[in-house]
Amino acid sequence: MHFRLTIEYDGTDFAGWQIQPTVRTVQSALEEALARLLGQPARVCAAGRTDAGVHASGQVVCFRTPRPLAPDTILRALNALTPRDLTVRTVDEVPDDFDARRSARSRVYVYHLWNRSMPSPFWRRYAWHIRHLLAVDVMAEAAAMLVGEHDFSSFRAAGCDAAHPVRRVLRSEIQRSGDLIRYEIEATAFLRHMVRNIVGTLVDVGQRIRRPDDIRALLAARDRTRAGITAPAHGLCLTEVKY
Amino acid sequence: MHFRLTIEYDGTDFAGWQIQPTVRTVQSALEEALARLLGQPARVCAAGRTDAGVHASGQVVCFRTPRPLAPDTILRALNALTPRDLTVRTVDEVPDDFDARRSARSRVYVYHLWNRSMPSPFWRRYAWHIRHLLAVDVMAEAAAMLVGEHDFSSFRAAGCDAAHPVRRVLRSEIQRSGDLIRYEIEATAFLRHMVRNIVGTLVDVGQRIRRPDDIRALLAARDRTRAGITAPAHGLCLTEVKY
Repeated sequence: MHFRLTIEYDGTDFAGWQIQPTVRTVQSALEEALARLLGQPARVCAAGRTDAGVHASGQVVCFRTPRPLAPDTILRALNALTPRDLTVRTVDEVPDDFDARRSARSRVYVYHLWNRSMPSPFWRRYAWHIRHLLAVDVMAEAAAMLVGEHDFSSFRAAGCDAAHPVRRVLRSEIQRSGDLIRYEIEATAFLRHMVRNIVGTLVDVGQRIRRPDDIRALLAARDRTRAGITAPAHGLCLTEVKY
Repeated sequence: MHFRLTIEYDGTDFAGWQIQPTVRTVQSALEEALARLLGQPARVCAAGRTDAGVHASGQVVCFRTPRPLAPDTILRALNALTPRDLTVRTVDEVPDDFDARRSARSRVYVYHLWNRSMPSPFWRRYAWHIRHLLAVDVMAEAAAMLVGEHDFSSFRAAGCDAAHPVRRVLRSEIQRSGDLIRYEIEATAFLRHMVRNIVGTLVDVGQRIRRPDDIRALLAARDRTRAGITAPAHGLCLTEVKY
């Protein structure tokens, strides 16, 4: 049988999604829980391999098992076996050819910025603290220029192993709510560090170091060294995968 | 000089407000930072002595110093000296007779409930997880019955050292927003564990174990054993003190 799980995790204490020797990763925590439930080793495949420190409120993963289990049984059992910073929200049976990564039509990421002079004890794990007041109106202008199909080489990490740098962004919106700024981006797929590199550049725009128009030139330049810094991982959250 | 600070803290890793030997408390963390800033021991007085695990986004504290410091200097220096789970949000000079506790006209507390079958990795430190769906409409009816001046003996902890059990509740409101339920209560002052005992009782109402009307009988009974359990500390947050 083939199952799809929607999972949530606080990335703070995980060394990212992908299984690695000696460190605690989301994949290893989930596979350990599954192995205990199934009584045999299990392998899961995720829609997005989030980096160390990145959170998820809507990650999607798949696994197979010869055991005929009810989705609700898996849901309850897994949540009793997973650590407190990892929750399984839904379990559904899926067709054999479903692939969490390849079947996905789009992914949605949210990046939070905490924007006041003093840090927040509550947002310190979930938002990048920027002391100086950001001009969100110009950041929104810049963000909107990313919508559409573009070559994102300027926003691609050096180690990215994607076959090509062209991605289609469906939505790219930023809004302030008090001291919190929320950036939401939806794309068919993402390059490595793409959202964090975009956020680093948007923060430059919000600090008036760059103009919103510069985004167009950055996309055309296809040169990572021209864009902003990589925003820290802990502000990022994978919120939804659409199929 | 006499200063008033507004502070925020994540109560998770503090053994409450009040200074105690061998454990980490908010008061000791703040007094240590102040001592380093002032170069001499300092004593602070808080509007509300929150229990172990209780959070604050608007606690108010006072301290005196013979040194003529600018509020903005104190603000920056203190935030460089406090741990990451404690932030000083504002600093103001106040008249000599200002008293953080006695001058307060009212306090506002918020209690968060996480209400879906699965826990949340993000709310686990800040909300009480109740698996079964609560009927928030009847909880709101019950909550409204607490408004006004009442004898709150039924909602008072055994160890409470208040002179009398009568308190005036100005506001008592509960609302659902998705899986999160937010209860807000404002009163001139509170008895020990009063909010948590009220929440324990409201959850009984939401589970249809009690009717909203029972609140009136509970107030009249003045008997702690008749009300609900004490809700856990980690759902509670002191959000504002009004003067």
